[in-house]
Amino acid sequence: MGFNFTKWHGAGNDFVLVNGFTETILDFEKTAIAVCNRNFGIGADGLVIISPSEIADFKMRIFNSDGSEAEMCGNVTRCVARYVYENKLTEKTKIELETKAGIIRPEIIFENGIFNQVKVDMGEPILSGALIPVIGFGNNRIINEKILVDTIEYNMTCVSMGNPHCVIFVDDMKKINLNSIGPKLEVHKSFPKKINVEFAEIKNEHHIRMRVWERGAGITLACGTGSCATLVAAVLNNKTERKATLELDGGNLIIEWADNNHVYMSGPAQEVFHGVYL
Amino acid sequence: MGFNFTKWHGAGNDFVLVNGFTETILDFEKTAIAVCNRNFGIGADGLVIISPSEIADFKMRIFNSDGSEAEMCGNVTRCVARYVYENKLTEKTKIELETKAGIIRPEIIFENGIFNQVKVDMGEPILSGALIPVIGFGNNRIINEKILVDTIEYNMTCVSMGNPHCVIFVDDMKKINLNSIGPKLEVHKSFPKKINVEFAEIKNEHHIRMRVWERGAGITLACGTGSCATLVAAVLNNKTERKATLELDGGNLIIEWADNNHVYMSGPAQEVFHGVYL
Repeated sequence: MGFNFTKWHGAGNDFVLVNGFTETILDFEKTAIAVCNRNFGIGADGLVIISPSEIADFKMRIFNSDGSEAEMCGNVTRCVARYVYENKLTEKTKIELETKAGIIRPEIIFENGIFNQVKVDMGEPILSGALIPVIGFGNNRIINEKILVDTIEYNMTCVSMGNPHCVIFVDDMKKINLNSIGPKLEVHKSFPKKINVEFAEIKNEHHIRMRVWERGAGITLACGTGSCATLVAAVLNNKTERKATLELDGGNLIIEWADNNHVYMSGPAQEVFHGVYL
Repeated sequence: MGFNFTKWHGAGNDFVLVNGFTETILDFEKTAIAVCNRNFGIGADGLVIISPSEIADFKMRIFNSDGSEAEMCGNVTRCVARYVYENKLTEKTKIELETKAGIIRPEIIFENGIFNQVKVDMGEPILSGALIPVIGFGNNRIINEKILVDTIEYNMTCVSMGNPHCVIFVDDMKKINLNSIGPKLEVHKSFPKKINVEFAEIKNEHHIRMRVWERGAGITLACGTGSCATLVAAVLNNKTERKATLELDGGNLIIEWADNNHVYMSGPAQEVFHGVYL
């Protein structure tokens, strides 16, 4: 029942990758739960299987540590792109990956011929209040609007990148107790589908320090869609240029809101070890 | 800089084992911190290096995830014993391991010729209040004595297995909020060197359900010395026989307080995966 695997992380968000061309896994859900366990398994945020696709270069399936299947993940996408290229499963540097959220197109970026990072098209931001969704703003944008948590007033900007985000700019990140405020905002009555919460401190017009409280997961080391939403929110508030470095707990991502309205995320993808799961 | 490793756990307490006969690690402290990180490294409670010894069959060094060196660990000992035997580094089934706490003697137990478990001599319990240490009892034993935490009275029995333990028997483990009571008992003024806290529910005279709050580490899945201390405390309170199964969060250990006053721990040792750290 064992299989070969390789362990990767993208800005601290970590995954077990399995080559579905050569390895066989019968029950993805059960295997993900066992493999992701950090004491009894390999330990990871998710299990990723790369297999043939009829509509793209590869098919990528992502299973969370609870066995559920994820639609897409920017951090996984970067790792899978580097993996298939460096292991010569493809010679392309612009790769098409079939996911449950459609075809995603990561591009491997080189510097002086050496791998530098992977750039992923994260799609267009959704800014209509009704579509994010946030209650009380109709189809208007929600830029620097007041929200009350326990008698404390915050200014929020809301953006959906396929999932909803509430971005709050602060002067000093160190003063924010994310473990306390995050869960209260996540379930605030303004957000009918709950929300991901980002606190962001503008370091300069090209540099944002950001921390995230992920809906259903709590504080995580990195969140690709949260980084995109934060850069979009910063631009909407005239706080940064359209391209900036997002400094997360787990590493840096470079986010660009391009003229074609697509948001591009560039960042690291690192193999840590590979082996045989017994 | 890479090296081969194998990943083991003993009742959920997990370790990266490295064969120091073939692999070279230059800085144990730095490597332990990097390797034990569960997002950026291999992920483990500790890094263990097995190397030649002049006074025993092997030397075993254990580094915690913070880089500090541990004196000894019963769960590691079981894994190392099975590892050196199954990888034919020795043909002995009673193995001598040099540790910072002296020579430890694990024995591999077979059932019908197949590996069953590893039995480790954990030494003699210390019952003198002054030596455990606990304040206020002189050199007397501390058996079923009252202790007050926030206005709630508990009955404690204290035992040292080289490290201090406070064992509290309860009727229903599910009613105990270990995250709340554990840290308060750990730093209670009765314990000058702080203390490890075990809550135990007697299932029958051969079966104890036990959960542990480890000094400096919080709730862990398994604690070898805590299991030994709990069995000794159960015998001192006439609650069990001198040999019983301890049911921990991470698995079962069999503890025996033998007639020679030594406490023997038997339990599992399981390899999960092996590979190359890059």
